[in-house]
Amino acid sequence: MPVNLTAPNPAHLPAVAGVRIGVAEAGIRKLNRKDLTVVLIDEGASVSGVFTQNRFCAAPVQVCREHLAADQGIRAMVINTGNANAGTGQEGLARARSTCQSLADLLGLAPAQILPFSTGVIMEPLPLERIVAGLPSALADASPAHWVRAAEGIMTTDTIAKAFGAQVMIGGTLVSISGISKGAGMIRPNMATMLGFMATDACVSQGVMQQLALELAEGSFNRVTVDGDTSTNDSFVVIASNKAAHAPIGSLASPEGQALKAAMLSVARQLAQAIVRDGEGATKFITIQVEGGKTSAECRQVAYAIAHSPLVKTAFFASDPNLGRILAAVGYAGISDLDQSGIDLYLDDVHVAIQGGRHPAYREEDGQRVMKQSEIAVRVMLGRGSASDTVWTCDLSHDYVSINADYRS
Amino acid sequence: MPVNLTAPNPAHLPAVAGVRIGVAEAGIRKLNRKDLTVVLIDEGASVSGVFTQNRFCAAPVQVCREHLAADQGIRAMVINTGNANAGTGQEGLARARSTCQSLADLLGLAPAQILPFSTGVIMEPLPLERIVAGLPSALADASPAHWVRAAEGIMTTDTIAKAFGAQVMIGGTLVSISGISKGAGMIRPNMATMLGFMATDACVSQGVMQQLALELAEGSFNRVTVDGDTSTNDSFVVIASNKAAHAPIGSLASPEGQALKAAMLSVARQLAQAIVRDGEGATKFITIQVEGGKTSAECRQVAYAIAHSPLVKTAFFASDPNLGRILAAVGYAGISDLDQSGIDLYLDDVHVAIQGGRHPAYREEDGQRVMKQSEIAVRVMLGRGSASDTVWTCDLSHDYVSINADYRS
Repeated sequence: MPVNLTAPNPAHLPAVAGVRIGVAEAGIRKLNRKDLTVVLIDEGASVSGVFTQNRFCAAPVQVCREHLAADQGIRAMVINTGNANAGTGQEGLARARSTCQSLADLLGLAPAQILPFSTGVIMEPLPLERIVAGLPSALADASPAHWVRAAEGIMTTDTIAKAFGAQVMIGGTLVSISGISKGAGMIRPNMATMLGFMATDACVSQGVMQQLALELAEGSFNRVTVDGDTSTNDSFVVIASNKAAHAPIGSLASPEGQALKAAMLSVARQLAQAIVRDGEGATKFITIQVEGGKTSAECRQVAYAIAHSPLVKTAFFASDPNLGRILAAVGYAGISDLDQSGIDLYLDDVHVAIQGGRHPAYREEDGQRVMKQSEIAVRVMLGRGSASDTVWTCDLSHDYVSINADYRS
Repeated sequence: MPVNLTAPNPAHLPAVAGVRIGVAEAGIRKLNRKDLTVVLIDEGASVSGVFTQNRFCAAPVQVCREHLAADQGIRAMVINTGNANAGTGQEGLARARSTCQSLADLLGLAPAQILPFSTGVIMEPLPLERIVAGLPSALADASPAHWVRAAEGIMTTDTIAKAFGAQVMIGGTLVSISGISKGAGMIRPNMATMLGFMATDACVSQGVMQQLALELAEGSFNRVTVDGDTSTNDSFVVIASNKAAHAPIGSLASPEGQALKAAMLSVARQLAQAIVRDGEGATKFITIQVEGGKTSAECRQVAYAIAHSPLVKTAFFASDPNLGRILAAVGYAGISDLDQSGIDLYLDDVHVAIQGGRHPAYREEDGQRVMKQSEIAVRVMLGRGSASDTVWTCDLSHDYVSINADYRS
């Protein structure tokens, strides 16, 4: 059961002019499951992506990077679940390229105009024939109204589809934003999470698209973690179809650039947080805010130490205010000159620790009350500067172990 | 159930001349439980210790560092379970000092000749009165034969006592080595693990004791991990009572120094590995050997990434050869110039991956066979140098979650 997250309503996902989506059941790993998605993009769109920093990046990630660098104009994406095509060596690369070639042939495009994505089990051969066989049916399904279908089509251990949209006025024109994401485990994005896609009909120069994708990822997917495992396949792609009737945005610092980025960031954050809310076995959604650091990097380092501690995560699962575990994680986060006597800890509004020790007024019942909530804010003040950062995570439950012990069965 | 680890036999723990141990039930957190241990050391011993690098180090760790630096000759140690006296601020420090003062008064020593140790829940006030009240009964129990009793006296979530001994010829004299350790969770020692103590009657100059403690910790406790959580209280103390009839060891590089260090390291490794074998919820003991790195530091970094991955650990628990997860962990370990096409992976004798992809001859049954064992060796070849390092860890099971969700109840 995801934490405070309901299935997306297709009515809330605006169509984005110039973008159509088709989904098929290709039987890639299991039968009767939407597992193949094609995104068709009209000519003239600006497209950029950010990808996993995992050195064992998957074959499709390598091909995406090549094709974006080739700069021939991205016109389609093809996404399969059931197989990650990672840890598959040269043969895996060849199969990712063949997937692009097949779709390019069907659409009359060059292979370098296609971006491939895969998600699923690592180190098993990609069932290329099934993907190729499923492409015509995915293409036949293409429609601008299929955002929620696409969100369903890219699910793996997700229990719920993740899709969010928004509309915003840019240069006097109402533009649409829709996005989807997937992921529940192996989530500690380091550039972006395992498959996030956003599209807008706003007009954005290709020159600023990469910066836009980076900034969106930094403010959303790069701030969530479920289990600290950075996936081999993390990919986040942003499409601006350039169909809206306003002047193109040439700088993110312009009023229009700022307005578009803010609206897109809001959607990206919902997509990223949805991954945590649907984190494998998650029963709680936890916001970890670290303040008073010398740099935001060290605040992030502390926030991730807390977010990845199995002891902190199991305490949240148990609703047990065993909050010394949070202090221990702060202490081993790797800030070598950290002075424990400067540290305060809050749980929501409850002041738990002051100057590195338990607050005299802190009562176990107050900690207990907050720990029982499904949404909890942890606030750590480092007392050594004015920087801050925030990370979102979930608890570690029996179901996480069950899901990952049984993943392939 | 610990993995291939049985209760220690007192007959295998040699008495160490000059060292006596007494244990009492002080009711610190629960009644009818050995929870207070005193180690009495004859005058003239060489003593050194290494302690947690956690910046939130516990009050007793701070006091240990002070007292060792004061160099007045360590004559006793006092160890309580049931409370870590960490995250307790100035009041915690005062209580750790009071504990030393009380024992010093009973023994006619200075407080700086006492080393205090605490283990248990973090951020709760140390029940000083109960400890002080229990000291006379612990002292009355003192005997050179009580190593196994001491191992029992320092247990918390441990399911089994951990004590190992050895005897070795040094300069024509047979010297004895005995050691104990405790710990099962919050285990990712960064200097030493949550309470390890070793003693020998060998003669070792104080001048080389710190180096000896460091090298023993580096080769043992600093190579194990259960959950990646570095404790606030990690302490490892080495005592040389200098009672044996050989010439004092003034250099670890001398033949006698090397022989003693090798014998002590063998005991230290058993103590450290015992912590993993008894890791919270552990069902498997896993050796992770990384070879072919540019430096041993980067090999260690890769080994810890694998050892800390919840996905790898749950796969071991499930005996599921979902070995792509190991490659993913290698990829995100943080070696920015790692080339995946140079990487090989073995599981025991099974060649799983070659040049970054699945080995053509690899069969799922072979991986399955190894994964079902209770002791598994993972071997990763990075193919970029000649350095190597090894880390020992365990799997992540339902019981880990249960134990840590219920820890305080």
